[in-house]
Amino acid sequence: MDVKAYMQKLGQQAREASRQLMVATTRQKNTALLNIATALEEQAETLKTENAKDLEQGKANGLDAAMLDRLALTDKVINGMATGLRQIAALNDPIGEISDMNYLPSGIQVGKMRVPLGVVGIIYESRPNVTIDAAALCLKSGNAALLRGGSEAAYSNRALAKCIQSALHESGLLPTAVQVVETTDRAAVGEMIAMPEYVDVIIPRGGKGLIERISEGAKVPVIKHLDGICHVYIDDDADADKATRVAFNAKTHRYGVCNAMETLLIADSRAAEILPGLVELYEEKGVELRGCEQTRAICDMKAATEEDWATEYLAPILSIKVVDDVDEAIDHITQYSSGHTESIITENLTTSRQFLARVDSSSVMVNASTRFADGFEYGLGAEIGISTDKFHARGPVGLEGLTSQKYIVLGDGTIRE
Amino acid sequence: MDVKAYMQKLGQQAREASRQLMVATTRQKNTALLNIATALEEQAETLKTENAKDLEQGKANGLDAAMLDRLALTDKVINGMATGLRQIAALNDPIGEISDMNYLPSGIQVGKMRVPLGVVGIIYESRPNVTIDAAALCLKSGNAALLRGGSEAAYSNRALAKCIQSALHESGLLPTAVQVVETTDRAAVGEMIAMPEYVDVIIPRGGKGLIERISEGAKVPVIKHLDGICHVYIDDDADADKATRVAFNAKTHRYGVCNAMETLLIADSRAAEILPGLVELYEEKGVELRGCEQTRAICDMKAATEEDWATEYLAPILSIKVVDDVDEAIDHITQYSSGHTESIITENLTTSRQFLARVDSSSVMVNASTRFADGFEYGLGAEIGISTDKFHARGPVGLEGLTSQKYIVLGDGTIRE
Repeated sequence: MDVKAYMQKLGQQAREASRQLMVATTRQKNTALLNIATALEEQAETLKTENAKDLEQGKANGLDAAMLDRLALTDKVINGMATGLRQIAALNDPIGEISDMNYLPSGIQVGKMRVPLGVVGIIYESRPNVTIDAAALCLKSGNAALLRGGSEAAYSNRALAKCIQSALHESGLLPTAVQVVETTDRAAVGEMIAMPEYVDVIIPRGGKGLIERISEGAKVPVIKHLDGICHVYIDDDADADKATRVAFNAKTHRYGVCNAMETLLIADSRAAEILPGLVELYEEKGVELRGCEQTRAICDMKAATEEDWATEYLAPILSIKVVDDVDEAIDHITQYSSGHTESIITENLTTSRQFLARVDSSSVMVNASTRFADGFEYGLGAEIGISTDKFHARGPVGLEGLTSQKYIVLGDGTIRE
Repeated sequence: MDVKAYMQKLGQQAREASRQLMVATTRQKNTALLNIATALEEQAETLKTENAKDLEQGKANGLDAAMLDRLALTDKVINGMATGLRQIAALNDPIGEISDMNYLPSGIQVGKMRVPLGVVGIIYESRPNVTIDAAALCLKSGNAALLRGGSEAAYSNRALAKCIQSALHESGLLPTAVQVVETTDRAAVGEMIAMPEYVDVIIPRGGKGLIERISEGAKVPVIKHLDGICHVYIDDDADADKATRVAFNAKTHRYGVCNAMETLLIADSRAAEILPGLVELYEEKGVELRGCEQTRAICDMKAATEEDWATEYLAPILSIKVVDDVDEAIDHITQYSSGHTESIITENLTTSRQFLARVDSSSVMVNASTRFADGFEYGLGAEIGISTDKFHARGPVGLEGLTSQKYIVLGDGTIRE
């Protein structure tokens, strides 16, 4: 069978399964999730054996230590997946939720009902645990899933798929509710993102290159997240302790994450007071600093270039710029931010309201670390990704982002006059 | 200037205006809307003079009576536009609405703030009143608008744009907040739908051909509506009077609209009782009927073909099919519906709950006419279109469909541990 025919077949099966899943009961979906968790624990040895084949091949292909680490299915990773499944089973079922039912003058009662999107296609790279994570979120939200993992994790993903499908079968759901694309042919991705009749949304998880390629070619909506060039702005009316605490945490809590601060902006009036202590903390922690001219007049550091303001370091590097006021801070953010997360440190109510209204990012914060921009921290209970788009889902995407709302109308033989 | 450069310039200007509009006060936006209404009334003679040029050219180009009718700016149409503007001014401002603010264990308080999408591109055909309607909805929701009307309405749209822009200027807003594309070069549409840096969403309003062409080529999200193949299903447990009333209204209230019923499904157990009276009503009204074999065994009519089930007549034609039960009705709907609107007539609670859950259309109704699927009837106060997609907006799209929600986070120097 050629790749196109193969993908069409998976798509048809997914569409069919989605019709069943759409009306699966909460208990059925939760039972399936718990059964998958048990299957992973029972099959831990098989999973590790299959994973060892991927690891071996990865080493032979010269994957670096970080990639091999992401690829490994250790006991800890397996237990983590099982725990994640049980957490998702414990979340409220978003499907069928009815809201805003109101009577209208004509006599009809109109409201909205939350429903699944249908079929979700997820394209990801080396981490095999995404297979479980994505399958669980799709199942809970009543969506069929079509999963395309990296070829370097092919053995692992196939073994995980077996666990999922036997658990689905046991729970009385169609095993095709979650399908792993088994060909490593790259053309499969091209087919998957161009079958609007079978796939309702694509979620790419991985590097910027992957996401750009997919967005470029997709014929269906894409929930995507590109850069996270996040800013903290220390305002004229900042509390110095809060400013130092948040600016330090936003940069150093973790480096390789999209919600880490990449540029610190600070009001001219507070720079000489706050920067020296903060710079000392960063330097103790080994963060490389790059400053604007005014910053460098206060603390000695490397000069920041135009390129720095537009860079997502994902590393212990921070650029620092002194600005006149909140207006200049917002102008800088408007120009350079990727629209992910920005935070202002201020005690001034009016300034904070301005910052909240005027900064056009998916998360806008006051006196809080950008590191909070995360589905779990926001109480969503799960996260399928962080969207820097404005359409449909924006910011951390949980189960709700995998759903839509249809209108429901109740009448009593009501007609339009 | 070539078309590409021209459209890029409009796009840049729209983006710039959108930054101002994003934070315009409710009063500013409402003043602008009311000023446009006044300008239209004051400039009524000019508008009619310019419109006459379009009408004359239309006649010379052989436009039919229906098209010329849609094109005409009569006093009634002008007053209708002014009334529409005042109604939109009276609606609540959706922008800035904060919802779901909750404290989380970390100490942060997280909620959502409603914000504009940014720049909305609207592509439409002959009706010049769409220019005002679309401009008003975009303004109220804080979005800059880029409007591309039909070339047959070029004089009218230019005159309307002048009214809008002088009113914007008077209200202290940038006149570029609403721009009418002035070239009639078709390449302008191609450019407009492929500038994601300047346009956030495209809304095509017009025939199916236009909408398909635009969806095909767009590099930005499209809020679109294709067919409306709507069904009414008369269930075993239907009240016969309600069934007759709704089925008659859904077909005959208006014919050329997307929410008119195109196929009537009726349970076998009720067909012989209900169909004869209903058929008489339809025939009195001059509706052409096409039935399945079972229907024709009860009432004499033309035979329906496979093609009938998949056709949006937009005309006084109705296809009728007898089904075994609600399952067969839902199967038929799943196969042939365009996902717009379906209604069940039943007194049975369990059957109605099943129908609501299992029918995957943008509006699902119980004991109500499909004709209610409309933004005004749903109490949205306005309608920019009806979306048959699942992503972002589904069903009638009002002001909310032109907005997005960002996360806002308030802390007290809160950091992630």
